[in-house]
Amino acid sequence: MIPDWIDTPSVMIDVDVLDANIARMASAMRTRGVRLRPHAKTHKVLEIGARQLAAGAVGLTVATIGEAEVFAAGGVKDLFIAYPLWVDARRAHRLLALGEAAAVRVGLDSVESAVEMGRNLGTGARNVGVLVEVDSGHHRSGALPADVVGIARAAADAGLPVEGAFTFPGHSYAPGMPQHAMRDEDSALTEASSRLLAAGFDVAELSGGSTPTALVGGGNAATELRPGVYVLGDAQQYELERCALSDIALTVAATVVSRSAPPGGKSRRVVVDAGSKILGSDRAAWATGYGRLLDEPAARIVALSEHHATIEWPDDAVLPGHGQRLRVVPNHVCLAMNLVDRVSVVRNGVVEDEWEVAARGRNS
Amino acid sequence: MIPDWIDTPSVMIDVDVLDANIARMASAMRTRGVRLRPHAKTHKVLEIGARQLAAGAVGLTVATIGEAEVFAAGGVKDLFIAYPLWVDARRAHRLLALGEAAAVRVGLDSVESAVEMGRNLGTGARNVGVLVEVDSGHHRSGALPADVVGIARAAADAGLPVEGAFTFPGHSYAPGMPQHAMRDEDSALTEASSRLLAAGFDVAELSGGSTPTALVGGGNAATELRPGVYVLGDAQQYELERCALSDIALTVAATVVSRSAPPGGKSRRVVVDAGSKILGSDRAAWATGYGRLLDEPAARIVALSEHHATIEWPDDAVLPGHGQRLRVVPNHVCLAMNLVDRVSVVRNGVVEDEWEVAARGRNS
Repeated sequence: MIPDWIDTPSVMIDVDVLDANIARMASAMRTRGVRLRPHAKTHKVLEIGARQLAAGAVGLTVATIGEAEVFAAGGVKDLFIAYPLWVDARRAHRLLALGEAAAVRVGLDSVESAVEMGRNLGTGARNVGVLVEVDSGHHRSGALPADVVGIARAAADAGLPVEGAFTFPGHSYAPGMPQHAMRDEDSALTEASSRLLAAGFDVAELSGGSTPTALVGGGNAATELRPGVYVLGDAQQYELERCALSDIALTVAATVVSRSAPPGGKSRRVVVDAGSKILGSDRAAWATGYGRLLDEPAARIVALSEHHATIEWPDDAVLPGHGQRLRVVPNHVCLAMNLVDRVSVVRNGVVEDEWEVAARGRNS
Repeated sequence: MIPDWIDTPSVMIDVDVLDANIARMASAMRTRGVRLRPHAKTHKVLEIGARQLAAGAVGLTVATIGEAEVFAAGGVKDLFIAYPLWVDARRAHRLLALGEAAAVRVGLDSVESAVEMGRNLGTGARNVGVLVEVDSGHHRSGALPADVVGIARAAADAGLPVEGAFTFPGHSYAPGMPQHAMRDEDSALTEASSRLLAAGFDVAELSGGSTPTALVGGGNAATELRPGVYVLGDAQQYELERCALSDIALTVAATVVSRSAPPGGKSRRVVVDAGSKILGSDRAAWATGYGRLLDEPAARIVALSEHHATIEWPDDAVLPGHGQRLRVVPNHVCLAMNLVDRVSVVRNGVVEDEWEVAARGRNS
């Protein structure tokens, strides 16, 4: 299944699986009547963003001005930087340039950032709107619902068009939490909306979403959702039962370089040449290891260093030999994509294209 | 201390601290009569490698053929790929080309890889030697000492010049372990050497080392050491008491984008714009958090996502305001360097140069 001329370690994307993931999420959002604005920080690839837009996404979400610049240069006309930006003079300059190329929204979660953003953007920013971030239980950034109106007023006073609110229910990334987090998201957006409306603001957008919550059924106040990981899948989503192994489009091709098969059969393990510098080293407390093996679900990656993954192999399966090539599923695909400059696009075991990870490393 | 025109997040290297780290390790190795071959996977920067060589390093260590190619193209004439390579036909082609430009050594830890390497390199590889990897207690790759001679024989039979043995005492990366791991390294190299000598092999090199063990005093059979992290320092080495905060040359400049200061004074925290996509997400079980703050040692990074670090601030210190810029020390500097294409070179708070991370992402 790994094309012969792929060197290891390297990232492969199965384009049929990718397209099926794009179609499934687009269809689910259409059925629900919610706009889809996929988070492009997951893939950072123009070609994947274009496929998402062609399938009906209203625009893309990004994490940084740098990512927005790459996608705008690639022709995307509607971008939301879902992050509480601190817009100093240099960032204001870049945002204004971005606003010439696309409709841009940015996040904010404090009076201070509203004042700074307004002062530095000045009156020229006709194409840059803001959504106030509200904390729905993830407790990272985001204002308390009670503070949303004060922040929106500060933004309006600073000359910024307030277009609604957004939240990230990141506490959905744990077993049993997606349903709970979706309800929290719904409550937070509902409360933010009520307060903004009562204070006289228009609420054009209530933006929510995450891959774990996007497909949870039930009422949701959100007008748009921003799932990211669904497009590629990863070991976290598999272990959270948010996708099947067959939905995982991205794997890292790796070669067995070392092997330990003691006669007693205890702790049979192989070491492959894919480490944290291509898989990323995210490991949630509930994860079973540092990633999974696509073709051997019972194997466990028990240790990870920069260029080695140590894999314990199940007793009842044949231990791979030296030089054998395996498909590794990273825990968190957003980090794996951010480690490579190019990915191989595979269909039916044949490499048919290579995509550039155009927004890789655009952290600022 | 963060130059005004640096955008956040971005990597800064204090060149005075860097040069002091280079000089200190070079001097310690000279005093001990051990050759120094710094591991360049830590920095991946030609300019830093050149400084290490100018200070007396005999050559550089790298992790992959790709890294070796970058440093050889940069003029480095002596390279050790300290990794049990699986040398298939394509890698053999690249190794042979590399051997035209530099003296190259590679690792192996099995009869199978010796046979494969010998077959694919053929008889033309005059400039490619091998060191047999021995496990000194890290239990990642590396042969048992009892197997070293069999592997060396297979390599010699396959036409490969066996030049000695190497080990990586990676179990030194835990509190209280450096001394213990150094003794294990010494034992493993001594035993490998005795066995190889008894079997009639020359043992030109016994290569060991790691930043935690390199400066541990006492006898060591190693003829060369390969520390990497010492050159930049990181939060892991600080927490292992292998360096002081003042020895840390690399920090990530970050801006406070969100802030939570409840009236009761409980859990006062800020969120900065540096996340796992620039800090890396390595966190050992014994680490106090996801990195440290250079200028506030009592602060703790309690959560890390791709573009956010959540920092709990000590009760008795002034909580930074929105827009304030902080210097973050990554846990594992080798991962942080691998996330950026360029770093700012700072002296006395002024940016005096920019270096390319030339071998970034060269995983294969």
